[in-house]
Amino acid sequence: MALIKHAFLNYPCLIKPEVIKNHDSVGIPVAKFVGNSRSDGRNLRRFLRVNATTGPPRNVQTINGNKVNGIYVDGIPSFAQEQCPSVKENSNEEPNHEYLLGRFVEDRFVYRQSFIIRSYEIGPEKTATMETIMNLLQETALNHVTSSGVSGNGFGATREMSLRKLIWVVTRIHIQVEKYSSWGDVVEIDTWVAAAGKNGMRRDWVIRDYNTQKIITRATSTWVIMNRETRRLCKIPDEVREEVQPFYLNRVSISTEDTDSEKIEKLTDETAERIRSGLAPRWNDMDANQHVNNVKYIGWILESVPINILEDYNLTSMTLEYRRECTQSNVLESLTSMKPDGKDDQEGSSKLVVKNDKKGWECTHLLRMEADQAEIVRARSVWQYKQHRLII
Amino acid sequence: MALIKHAFLNYPCLIKPEVIKNHDSVGIPVAKFVGNSRSDGRNLRRFLRVNATTGPPRNVQTINGNKVNGIYVDGIPSFAQEQCPSVKENSNEEPNHEYLLGRFVEDRFVYRQSFIIRSYEIGPEKTATMETIMNLLQETALNHVTSSGVSGNGFGATREMSLRKLIWVVTRIHIQVEKYSSWGDVVEIDTWVAAAGKNGMRRDWVIRDYNTQKIITRATSTWVIMNRETRRLCKIPDEVREEVQPFYLNRVSISTEDTDSEKIEKLTDETAERIRSGLAPRWNDMDANQHVNNVKYIGWILESVPINILEDYNLTSMTLEYRRECTQSNVLESLTSMKPDGKDDQEGSSKLVVKNDKKGWECTHLLRMEADQAEIVRARSVWQYKQHRLII
Repeated sequence: MALIKHAFLNYPCLIKPEVIKNHDSVGIPVAKFVGNSRSDGRNLRRFLRVNATTGPPRNVQTINGNKVNGIYVDGIPSFAQEQCPSVKENSNEEPNHEYLLGRFVEDRFVYRQSFIIRSYEIGPEKTATMETIMNLLQETALNHVTSSGVSGNGFGATREMSLRKLIWVVTRIHIQVEKYSSWGDVVEIDTWVAAAGKNGMRRDWVIRDYNTQKIITRATSTWVIMNRETRRLCKIPDEVREEVQPFYLNRVSISTEDTDSEKIEKLTDETAERIRSGLAPRWNDMDANQHVNNVKYIGWILESVPINILEDYNLTSMTLEYRRECTQSNVLESLTSMKPDGKDDQEGSSKLVVKNDKKGWECTHLLRMEADQAEIVRARSVWQYKQHRLII
Repeated sequence: MALIKHAFLNYPCLIKPEVIKNHDSVGIPVAKFVGNSRSDGRNLRRFLRVNATTGPPRNVQTINGNKVNGIYVDGIPSFAQEQCPSVKENSNEEPNHEYLLGRFVEDRFVYRQSFIIRSYEIGPEKTATMETIMNLLQETALNHVTSSGVSGNGFGATREMSLRKLIWVVTRIHIQVEKYSSWGDVVEIDTWVAAAGKNGMRRDWVIRDYNTQKIITRATSTWVIMNRETRRLCKIPDEVREEVQPFYLNRVSISTEDTDSEKIEKLTDETAERIRSGLAPRWNDMDANQHVNNVKYIGWILESVPINILEDYNLTSMTLEYRRECTQSNVLESLTSMKPDGKDDQEGSSKLVVKNDKKGWECTHLLRMEADQAEIVRARSVWQYKQHRLII
């Protein structure tokens, strides 16, 4: 298994299990509700319910097709409540900070957070950039984990993982953008987690335009477990699997046939059409781990994309495959090759000159160390001509 | 007057004036309230009141010492309401998006917005970066203007300014940070505007930690008017002055003696101790005007600051003086010189070696074009040793 270091502060959803004494016939557990549960039932959303929104009553032994062995979730104080113990009562005059974070929906399987696109998060197109979208996905995922109340050190490893010095690392992320939001637009992001093969975890997201409630972006990512000292990947220990498995949601944000799961070719000096060297991380590119935040890679990848592609085409899809982490002392090279988009069109690359092809382009990218050419990220991007864009 | 191009999407506060028919003895105007004013008076904050929170009743003819000539402000739908016509009723399940933006307080002279510091807005110190702070100041200022309901094109020029092709440009900004917030912290930003000399406008901000309500950051900035076609500065036309003057708030975020109003020395190859060349704006550094967003300059300035200053000292104060705009084709150089901090200590610069001085440093910076050495930004920064930091 390749050595992959972590690049992304994003961790699995975990919800503190509590023994449920009983549950009623429609699947609502008669659980020990904590907090100020209201007699009108409106606060039920604060607590996990076993029943799905629709469908037949299910036994507490299975949730979303996973056995839960009789243990389940109690009401956990939300992150907002933990962080803001002195948040005042809601009124016309005071903001509700809980909503500035997010909340659980759909029986606590899905975490939902709303954002307003800020003035500094839009790019030359006056719309949110891909970097902004990835930042918001990361933020939602982190708040999801923290709100669940189990991340001891703030980085989302489970208790059993922490005991074993294990961390989650992202290996691949794939994002499909149908519409980029503008400054002031409200977006609503849902995220949840699921199994990915025997030793992986999947995290999915959908972004809705709040006003239209249409899905405007879909994303999926794959995570594996690594020993934080040896930096080697490892299998999920049974104890960890038992912690996380009950909380997986068997749902995909992108259907299997629409997901980019194809191998990303490794570019070389020969196959790359454009190489941009001397890309140095800035002090501000470092994250709390003194590593380059994985979202920053997007900026460097775009540095080797021709300016007329950036100007005349919309980035509609991006896939990133993380291979190695990067620190401030590393100087990077960004490589790109292009071919006209379309699966039937295999006539080869464009050989440096970007023709006035109005259909679109598929680009392959590589970020590597300038010193030893070690791979950091492979990526694929799809660009659609603006006249044909899906942006309304 | 020097040629200064605009670098910052930040504009004056303007509130649509409406004729007030009458006002009562305590200064509350008997205005034509629009919207769903409530009988319990709680919605009064949605409407401008002439009376201050404290102090004697004032005549409608003067507000904060400025004549208002009998015209006054009516209830203006907030930006949130304009942007989100389909925002649902507040309930336990739906966020109140108005609070994701901001609201007027203190008789609508002050605009207030709350933010939660996001995971991707913190730096290696695990606290919000100076860049994040400036982004949030910019966002609050822009929402302030847009919420006032008069920015025809979204860029904050008044109607009289738009008729004359005039825009506001920032010339100087000074920020004092007492405490940097951490991920998840809630901050509350207040902003307002005032006169600055005969032809300038001042915009001030204070940032409070929401939980403690302590002021943790103060900032002030100066703005002048420029012709957007000739790029020349000009006097404020009388018609524009009449539009903006009634809405100025005579208050300072930083007392005059504590404000950094000293001239910033222009560094040269001879006086600079460190020069970092080859700084190229990335595609993602461009804003909606295809210019480098002024906040990005901070990252480049920090590129010529020694790493041990960045690591061992806190940036407690920054002053930026904008001289020229910058586009993606420009390659920049960042220059820095340092001297031990302390006004009585004039023993000269440190000559490249950063001594283990535990007091602090005052740095002078210059960002200039690499090609012709034309100035873009002069800056001054003050750094305090971390043992002595004010961060708790």
